[in-house]
Amino acid sequence: MIVEFDTYPAGKSSGLGEEIAKVKEIIEASGLDHQLTAMGTIIEGDWDEVMSTIKKCHHRLKQDHERVETHIKIDDHADRTGRLKGKVDSVRENL
Amino acid sequence: MIVEFDTYPAGKSSGLGEEIAKVKEIIEASGLDHQLTAMGTIIEGDWDEVMSTIKKCHHRLKQDHERVETHIKIDDHADRTGRLKGKVDSVRENL
Amino acid sequence: MIVEFDTYPAGKSSGLGEEIAKVKEIIEASGLDHQLTAMGTIIEGDWDEVMSTIKKCHHRLKQDHERVETHIKIDDHADRTGRLKGKVDSVRENL
Amino acid sequence: MIVEFDTYPAGKSSGLGEEIAKVKEIIEASGLDHQLTAMGTIIEGDWDEVMSTIKKCHHRLKQDHERVETHIKIDDHADRTGRLKGKVDSVRENL
Repeated sequence: MIVEFDTYPAGKSSGLGEEIAKVKEIIEASGLDHQLTAMGTIIEGDWDEVMSTIKKCHHRLKQDHERVETHIKIDDHADRTGRLKGKVDSVRENL
Repeated sequence: MIVEFDTYPAGKSSGLGEEIAKVKEIIEASGLDHQLTAMGTIIEGDWDEVMSTIKKCHHRLKQDHERVETHIKIDDHADRTGRLKGKVDSVRENL
Repeated sequence: MIVEFDTYPAGKSSGLGEEIAKVKEIIEASGLDHQLTAMGTIIEGDWDEVMSTIKKCHHRLKQDHERVETHIKIDDHADRTGRLKGKVDSVRENL
Repeated sequence: MIVEFDTYPAGKSSGLGEEIAKVKEIIEASGLDHQLTAMGTIIEGDWDEVMSTIKKCHHRLKQDHERVETHIKIDDHADRTGRLKGKVDSVRENL
């Protein structure tokens, strides 16, 4: 499945680059295919590997902040893998 | 933490009451505090109990549908529990 | 259409009751059918009346805060009105 | 402000490339800076230009489908522009 998420401390209004870098380190260690966008991170894998990675990110920020918000958007299409790149390609083909 | 989520098959445009009823059955079996709204379900618990419940809901719909979408919004505030009711109450006090 | 939204200053980690009260005042002045939940506000109306209300809420918070985040989730079902209450009722009937 | 959104007919489970192409045509005609991701579109502009573009996309799909869902995520940071590219760059600098 393909999943977009963002996680951030509720109490910081700017200078979030440091938090995003912590999250990015965890995502890269997961070995999952991923992409960083201006609004979050898109990651591909099965439920358990994706969710355990997001849990690590969320709890990494909880170490330093009292309140953490996380949004997760899941698109789970049976028997489709390699979609992180494929979804954008298939749109281009329709143009 | 307090979590709002919705899960639904991508390929149904109406008559989703049956799917929502399946999800509601799983949520009630979890024993977690929850509330059904017009746009999803709000549930309260720790990461593992909430996420294992949402996973069950998501995979219950996957049994019957090829593609399932799930959105999860987490508000995790240290040392706060009983917030499902409390958050609304504290707003009323400010009015 | 039925719309859930939340709007908040990125730089406050707690004590958001005051901000939510400002938003609630604007929503009530709109005259639209609405419901406050622990995770946001659900509101019903057509595109222009709902979006002008959310815009007012967002910009009200911008007066006091440098950075504001707003999330909007729209469910627009042709020829359906009075759904804020109706969607929950129709689920109950399926139980 | 920087905004991520996705809009889609509730009643199609696959083969959404055609719908995404309709949306992409409207976004390109808007002249706004934008980026297509595997999970939606990120667009940058002020409230009125972004929202009128999303409204056009939503209503374009309503012409062909009974029920349309749209999700919008707004990050509005005072006096910041050119952030669609800049946010990703500033994370890279922190690595």
